[in-house]
Amino acid sequence: MKIGIIQSPVTNDKKTNLTNAEGFIRQAAEGGADIVVLPEMFNCPYYNAAFVANAEPADGPSTARLSAAAAQNGVYLVGGSIPLLEEGHIYNASFVFDRAGRRLAVHKKVHLFDIAIDGGQVFQESATFTAGDAVTVFDTEFGKMGLCICFDFRFPELARLMALEGARCIFVPAAFNMTTGPAHWELMFRQRAVDNQLFTVGVAPARSYEGYVSYANSMVVSPWGDIIYRAEEKPALAVVDLDMAQIDSVRRQLPLLSARRTDLYAVSHLPRP
Amino acid sequence: MKIGIIQSPVTNDKKTNLTNAEGFIRQAAEGGADIVVLPEMFNCPYYNAAFVANAEPADGPSTARLSAAAAQNGVYLVGGSIPLLEEGHIYNASFVFDRAGRRLAVHKKVHLFDIAIDGGQVFQESATFTAGDAVTVFDTEFGKMGLCICFDFRFPELARLMALEGARCIFVPAAFNMTTGPAHWELMFRQRAVDNQLFTVGVAPARSYEGYVSYANSMVVSPWGDIIYRAEEKPALAVVDLDMAQIDSVRRQLPLLSARRTDLYAVSHLPRP
Repeated sequence: MKIGIIQSPVTNDKKTNLTNAEGFIRQAAEGGADIVVLPEMFNCPYYNAAFVANAEPADGPSTARLSAAAAQNGVYLVGGSIPLLEEGHIYNASFVFDRAGRRLAVHKKVHLFDIAIDGGQVFQESATFTAGDAVTVFDTEFGKMGLCICFDFRFPELARLMALEGARCIFVPAAFNMTTGPAHWELMFRQRAVDNQLFTVGVAPARSYEGYVSYANSMVVSPWGDIIYRAEEKPALAVVDLDMAQIDSVRRQLPLLSARRTDLYAVSHLPRP
Repeated sequence: MKIGIIQSPVTNDKKTNLTNAEGFIRQAAEGGADIVVLPEMFNCPYYNAAFVANAEPADGPSTARLSAAAAQNGVYLVGGSIPLLEEGHIYNASFVFDRAGRRLAVHKKVHLFDIAIDGGQVFQESATFTAGDAVTVFDTEFGKMGLCICFDFRFPELARLMALEGARCIFVPAAFNMTTGPAHWELMFRQRAVDNQLFTVGVAPARSYEGYVSYANSMVVSPWGDIIYRAEEKPALAVVDLDMAQIDSVRRQLPLLSARRTDLYAVSHLPRP
């Protein structure tokens, strides 16, 4: 299973961002990618006023162009995330398309990014966004895949639920910053991979130097916790081959999923109220 | 809150191991330690036949000497672990004593260490041990503390349950090996600390070079994920000062515990059947 990682730069112009993404998707497909992954908010700079200004409905121009790019290149596309306008609410939403351009899944970020580090990063997504309320997995020819957005991945319950629902790889469009990135980015992608014995894929925008600064460092980690791809800060495109047989091999040798004490504790997905 | 970390060597002779531990506990107390922590199986080498040969009841000589050492030195003592014989079963058990030598808690390892890494470590604790069935936290003058043993800490549910029950530090007598140690030891102690926004303390036997080889590298990690103490492979004693105010500070700045979507998922401690 070959993953196209697109660490694209994000400009202030949505059309430019979409055109750039289309070019990268084509290149990744030419490189043999089966599943192409874009960064969080790849079509819009990361600040609240931009989310409002760029929000569009589920059948807007961004999803139309992503669907077309998936179909034209015959790839699965995890379309990073975009500001989605739905019934008066704005969501940080990731749309996934299959090789024919059909919508396969939508994940709305469920944990909004509200932090205030003393002398470091401050941000309040909840000023603009409404949170989603679903755990997202989707089927592909390579098996089930998990999907969440950035801050969602901070919460081990979500990754665990995706693993228990059968995810073999978790895709995380994301944009850590220069406070939390150096401290926690690699650690999180590695430990979630080890705990859940699956691949983790984090895809971030290239480093920007004004406003919210993306840590970049897009990353792919194996079920053993090895970093098998890591971008630097510059724009980058890579096609990374995942040996999916490693999943069963690691699970057999180090039985962390099967040795869970399901008689003693449970992680459960609560029904919607 | 000052933690005495005792990375002691383990010999084949139980009495020698206990005498060594007593000496280290005294030194740690003289160094100002409030809570002293011994390694997993500090009184017995790590192989199944030794567990059987050295098993003793809850009121046997090892717990008597640990209790006396806690009282004589006026420290809390997390007594690593010992093979405990109870109603015909053997457990990998950790006894905790207060400053007066009274028993405060017992944790019986709930996840037995059965792994078989191709070309690497193979071990089967379940050949000898029976698994416990409880999540363990205990009260101290510094607040609630969590306790589990080595492989238990591999399972994020257990650490999460301890955090939700109020643990401010999780003590983990442990003995990783030369396969899993370099790969996962530091990662696990750091990510559990970050996820649960508390201190983690791993205490291992010093490196041995026959039989099961302990990775050593006893470690203390802050709620931000910083390694504030790390031993090397040799026998080591350290008194490490934990700034407990960091817990609330990190939880306020990066609200990972309070931002859990408790309407969407739950981690629960199941009732005993």
